[in-house]
Amino acid sequence: MMNVELDNYPHRRFNPLTNSWVLCSPHRTKRPWQGQQETLEDKLIPEHDSQCYLCPRNSRANGNLNPNYSNTFVFDNDYAALISNQPKSFIDKNDNDDDESNRSSLLKVESVRGECKVICFSPKHNITIAEMTEEDIIHVIQTWTKIYQNSFSIPFINYVQIFENKGSIMGCSNPHPHCQVWSSESIPEEPSKELKSMTKYYEKNNSCLLCDYVKLEGNSLKSSDKSSQQSIQQSIQQSSQQSSQQSRIVYENNSFICVVPFWAIWPYETMIISKSHITNLDELEKVENGQKDLSNIIRNITCRYDNIFQCSFPYSMGIHQAPVDNMNHSHDSHLHLHFYPPLLRSPTIKKFLVGYELFAEPQRDITPEYAASILRKCSEIHYKNSIH
Amino acid sequence: MMNVELDNYPHRRFNPLTNSWVLCSPHRTKRPWQGQQETLEDKLIPEHDSQCYLCPRNSRANGNLNPNYSNTFVFDNDYAALISNQPKSFIDKNDNDDDESNRSSLLKVESVRGECKVICFSPKHNITIAEMTEEDIIHVIQTWTKIYQNSFSIPFINYVQIFENKGSIMGCSNPHPHCQVWSSESIPEEPSKELKSMTKYYEKNNSCLLCDYVKLEGNSLKSSDKSSQQSIQQSIQQSSQQSSQQSRIVYENNSFICVVPFWAIWPYETMIISKSHITNLDELEKVENGQKDLSNIIRNITCRYDNIFQCSFPYSMGIHQAPVDNMNHSHDSHLHLHFYPPLLRSPTIKKFLVGYELFAEPQRDITPEYAASILRKCSEIHYKNSIH
Ligand SMILES: O=P(O)(O)O[C@H]1O[C@H](CO)[C@@H](O)[C@H](O)[C@H]1O
Ligand SMILES: O=P(O)(O)O[C@H]1O[C@H](CO)[C@@H](O)[C@H](O)[C@H]1O
Repeated sequence: MMNVELDNYPHRRFNPLTNSWVLCSPHRTKRPWQGQQETLEDKLIPEHDSQCYLCPRNSRANGNLNPNYSNTFVFDNDYAALISNQPKSFIDKNDNDDDESNRSSLLKVESVRGECKVICFSPKHNITIAEMTEEDIIHVIQTWTKIYQNSFSIPFINYVQIFENKGSIMGCSNPHPHCQVWSSESIPEEPSKELKSMTKYYEKNNSCLLCDYVKLEGNSLKSSDKSSQQSIQQSIQQSSQQSSQQSRIVYENNSFICVVPFWAIWPYETMIISKSHITNLDELEKVENGQKDLSNIIRNITCRYDNIFQCSFPYSMGIHQAPVDNMNHSHDSHLHLHFYPPLLRSPTIKKFLVGYELFAEPQRDITPEYAASILRKCSEIHYKNSIH
Repeated sequence: MMNVELDNYPHRRFNPLTNSWVLCSPHRTKRPWQGQQETLEDKLIPEHDSQCYLCPRNSRANGNLNPNYSNTFVFDNDYAALISNQPKSFIDKNDNDDDESNRSSLLKVESVRGECKVICFSPKHNITIAEMTEEDIIHVIQTWTKIYQNSFSIPFINYVQIFENKGSIMGCSNPHPHCQVWSSESIPEEPSKELKSMTKYYEKNNSCLLCDYVKLEGNSLKSSDKSSQQSIQQSIQQSSQQSSQQSRIVYENNSFICVVPFWAIWPYETMIISKSHITNLDELEKVENGQKDLSNIIRNITCRYDNIFQCSFPYSMGIHQAPVDNMNHSHDSHLHLHFYPPLLRSPTIKKFLVGYELFAEPQRDITPEYAASILRKCSEIHYKNSIH
């Protein structure tokens, strides 16, 4: 289809990873907004908060004292959604799952064991990934990798979900920089869908879906940004959508690309994808400067995010990688990170994924190509550190 | 599995309609909340607001004047996400969709035509469905039905999605009571999933999935609520979850049941399901008192919602019914309404479906059975009208 039509008319795009469609209505940001505005969080936050249960030396809900940690710190979530000790009778019942002779096909249930951990990124209460150094972020990546590695030896853990909720708008209840790891017996819905799609694609094309997607985006016309003379604010205000001829790549280094996927749902959604075919964080070791390059690209995109509206940009981030079920995942997994940020128009106006999105289909208002062009224009230097 | 285990241990439940799992962690509401609190909207709202583009006699974005309407009022959305006039060349390209020889399997797109309408429920700016009379709500149902009926004759419309976003927390930009209808050429993701599941179920069981589910919930032990002596607030505070032996039915009349589905995601999610096998609103005519009973149960559940926390309870509501594509849907469709309300702990604390939910699997903190028991305790008389 012609790019100019994608810039101007409603259309659906297909997400080959989750096997589902998203509705794109490029002309729609012109409507006025009288709805909810978020409150800005830019009050001064101290480097150490005596009330914070994540700061070094403070005590947590269970009475334990946090150590005087200097880079990352891991502990078991005091309010875990998944726990390891379930009654044996409960676990054993899973074996009857196939008995669909009676009500069980409509009231199907299975027990699930697991673990929930919290990882503090830094002892500093008032910092975020966007403002951390690449060296600091490497510590975080090494902590993620270690937890992932260790999970192979826990018999009731088959999948490890690492995710960060950043900002109160994304349900984060504490500004101290941290993420969570929920590990489970079951392979959850979203990674299951991706595994299935990757398998199907591999069987059909004898190649990896995400390897092919990286190549495709890399080959796309890297025309110089025609509107690059405009400021970001001008571009956002004009919603100048003449951009789908352009690349969806926001940034790349030797090992990774960061792209607004063709099928993005959230306004400024991005994916960081490994250029080489590695299936998990552990295999980063095989890649020259692998951890360093991942750190570099995470810092780069989170910093650009903060620079869009000159605010601490909220998002949920999730890492998808191979299950830890000791099966062969060389063909159905490819290490990647998703960023889902909700802001659409300003630091206080988000995109609501509500009625139509929940009952019918996700709907977006700006094209992914336009979002990528805005992100490319954002500086790699954090706005707080740039000289005005 | 034993009910006591479902009340106390994390488990997954299966949604047969969407063919997906939800993680249930019944023990988790005990954690403290330091995160975002919503602002209460209970400021006094006038019955007519001169600034509101939905009130009678006011002018809209396109300059048109609203009529002096007395029950419902329908108009075309001035900022429609779906439009009917796309270039022919764009539409025709859909035919090439199967050409997966090149990039198209990873960059798949299709044009989509459609229409977006807004329906005002009432001329009164300061009322909601929960406070409207059954007679008023019948007008709304008749308006829905008419739009649905008329869509059969529009060649480029195959699916009609009626939905309401209520409350600013659910992205609603205007408190004036209204809903939307987005009608599209394509059958969107969520109804597609349901159609597929219903078909599969019918082929296997020679009966309708939702007919069977209604029977199942109807037969479930309707024990009198053991904790019915407690007030709602006591029950919520104690998170007393000893309720899974109990029914998930909140309310029923001759034609409909309202149930917290076994696989609910949102804390107080409910479904209104027709007891007889009708596939759409139009067929309500075949049911004795069909429209009246639907009106009765909609008023009942929305009123109970407001009474949980004595506030105007936000939600997104969506109606699922047969597509209007002139195919036979007697076996894959069954009229039902979903309510997705976000509040969890109080009028200002909602459940965030974020990191784990977006990247792994939806997760809930209270059991559906517990939610049903709370809703059953709520009065059918709106708190604003009850004498204290
Ligand atoms: O059309 P409205 O009410 O302005 O918009 C609201 O509902 C739409 C359909 O669910 C969403 O896409 C928007 O994000 C939301 O703000
Ligand atoms: O564990 P937290 O940070 O308190 O909780 C946050 O993330 C969880 C996982 O995405 C969600 O289930 C919660 O609704 C959210 O508030």
